Amino acid sequence: MQTLQVELAERSYPIYIGDGLLARSDILLSHIAGRQVAVVTNETVAPLYLERLLAVLADFSVTPIILPDGEAFKHWATLQLIFDGLLAARHDRGTTIIALGGGVIGDMAGFAAACYQRGVDFIQIPTTLLSQVDSSVGGKTGINHPLGKNMIGAFYQPKAVLIDTSTLVTLPPRELSAGLAEVIKYGLICDMPFLAWLELHVEALLALDQALLGEAITRSCAAKAAVVGVDERESGLRATLNLGHTFGHAIETHMGYGVWLHGEAVAVGTVMALEMSQRLGWLTPAERDRSIRLLLRAGLPVVPPAEMTPDNFLEHMAVDKKVLDGHLRLVLLKGLGAAVVTSDFPREVLDVTLRADYRAMVDQLRDE
Amino acid sequence: MQTLQVELAERSYPIYIGDGLLARSDILLSHIAGRQVAVVTNETVAPLYLERLLAVLADFSVTPIILPDGEAFKHWATLQLIFDGLLAARHDRGTTIIALGGGVIGDMAGFAAACYQRGVDFIQIPTTLLSQVDSSVGGKTGINHPLGKNMIGAFYQPKAVLIDTSTLVTLPPRELSAGLAEVIKYGLICDMPFLAWLELHVEALLALDQALLGEAITRSCAAKAAVVGVDERESGLRATLNLGHTFGHAIETHMGYGVWLHGEAVAVGTVMALEMSQRLGWLTPAERDRSIRLLLRAGLPVVPPAEMTPDNFLEHMAVDKKVLDGHLRLVLLKGLGAAVVTSDFPREVLDVTLRADYRAMVDQLRDE
Repeated sequence: MQTLQVELAERSYPIYIGDGLLARSDILLSHIAGRQVAVVTNETVAPLYLERLLAVLADFSVTPIILPDGEAFKHWATLQLIFDGLLAARHDRGTTIIALGGGVIGDMAGFAAACYQRGVDFIQIPTTLLSQVDSSVGGKTGINHPLGKNMIGAFYQPKAVLIDTSTLVTLPPRELSAGLAEVIKYGLICDMPFLAWLELHVEALLALDQALLGEAITRSCAAKAAVVGVDERESGLRATLNLGHTFGHAIETHMGYGVWLHGEAVAVGTVMALEMSQRLGWLTPAERDRSIRLLLRAGLPVVPPAEMTPDNFLEHMAVDKKVLDGHLRLVLLKGLGAAVVTSDFPREVLDVTLRADYRAMVDQLRDE
Repeated sequence: MQTLQVELAERSYPIYIGDGLLARSDILLSHIAGRQVAVVTNETVAPLYLERLLAVLADFSVTPIILPDGEAFKHWATLQLIFDGLLAARHDRGTTIIALGGGVIGDMAGFAAACYQRGVDFIQIPTTLLSQVDSSVGGKTGINHPLGKNMIGAFYQPKAVLIDTSTLVTLPPRELSAGLAEVIKYGLICDMPFLAWLELHVEALLALDQALLGEAITRSCAAKAAVVGVDERESGLRATLNLGHTFGHAIETHMGYGVWLHGEAVAVGTVMALEMSQRLGWLTPAERDRSIRLLLRAGLPVVPPAEMTPDNFLEHMAVDKKVLDGHLRLVLLKGLGAAVVTSDFPREVLDVTLRADYRAMVDQLRDE
């Protein structure tokens, strides 16, 4: 088992990573302060792992709250089901909410924990690759609004993150690939050796090699923990973790939440950020293509939806959380492994990026 | 003008109190960081004061968001109207939300500010006595759930509180009295000289004497600021500010939000806490009666709703935020000016308190 620490003074917490941790009651119980626990999960994850978790929690007063599955349900009405469940079972301020599931469950359970009686304890048990390498760490919680993704939420840190890598064996391949989009992101923004490591091992990761998955998750979480420790509330450095996310959120919002997986939209958004960085002269075409090839090998989409026009992108990007004083800020690369957050680009380069023929670009890469 | 400071390290902020402050652009503008402002108010307050505030904000990009008036609307659907307004006008993370209105507006606008894009700046301009002396200070924000008052919310401090005492001239007498319930509370829990001062001036306060109102508000805010500075998240001392609130919340929830004003329910809840403290031998009957007389002179109800049974009270009190590990904790008085938070009372005394004949008690006081 690996243990990392997110350093945030009195809100610091550990990340445990290992094979079979879900059954390790000693770890989980050391982070529960009271007698009441609510387990928030969904209809897909509950049949797989809820019983195992409830066995560990046998001595507590436990309320399971089972939500519908998917990004399409990451909105207020579903969040309300959590509050209804907590109040019906009379959970008090001393309760602990455990998120058992992917990023949507973690975001909603975390936001519910932030708001219930103005804040109760919260533990993340992420069961998808995407949530294990990204969304379970760092305290971003929230729900979507019809006009924008994650527009309503809180920064609210968990007491602990428990990552059982064996849960990935039940993950659909499409979701495994989606998680790899965020893993590759860490290499692109700040870790060239990790990028090279991923180029060596991407197929083995897709084949669920437990040791390599453990290493990929640990390196990803270590990168995230370091950034969050420096910039919890995203006043600077943390925004670089959103490489591909501004374009990606536009895709998710436009196509309807859940039609594209978050990681899939991020993969395409990353390609657009690579293309824009290249057009600004900050990346060579070879660096751009090398990155796109890795995304392709990870089984990810790399071409924006055919039905989205440049205006569709601009409309959604205008409400992105990185807009400040009317200026659109984007995460771009000044070389591989060197992300920047900037609004210092000619508007024409953005327009050209939105109009680029990604289909042709990718066909050419595939032909090589 | 009086200025107080809430001392919370990097989240410290000033409270300005004075006659005509709404037109003092220098004060307000010094607390707005960006170019965008959203003013959240309601249908009652908007015709009275919105235009005056918009004149001060002439150089900003302002979105007025006008909500229906009343506690009955302090729920998610109304909160959503704020998010809709912010997103439709593309407010970014640099925006400032101003709450212009009473406690319901402040609680909802503050919670919206806490959640919008995971947190934006927020300024309180309270226009009712209750919000000026209590709810606008200290960062408690939130909305009601059908099963419990203020069950969903956040601790989120404003950047400043601007109290214009002249707004009280348009306040309905019933709301002025409701505000006095919270003013009297400060005397009862921690400030005997203030209690004696209120006994001298309660009629003049009801007659809107501006100088005396300014003094009552300043003394109330100073008491609140001191408590919040010591215990922002209500782990101890701050809970004493909830004298009468556990009984009062039960009345508000049971009768339907908005049927009783919050201050009216607190007044009756305070009488119940006085009665229980007296039955525990912590107050003399004379001290209890002296306090009830002041509430009566302030024009407040002091008898629980006839339709509420002891079981009705117990059912609602079981989900109160002060319940911990199944133990109901109550704010009681160990002498006038000396509040305690305790679960150390015989259950029978609570039962007797809930069954007491308050009508007869008050009739006797009125006859004296």
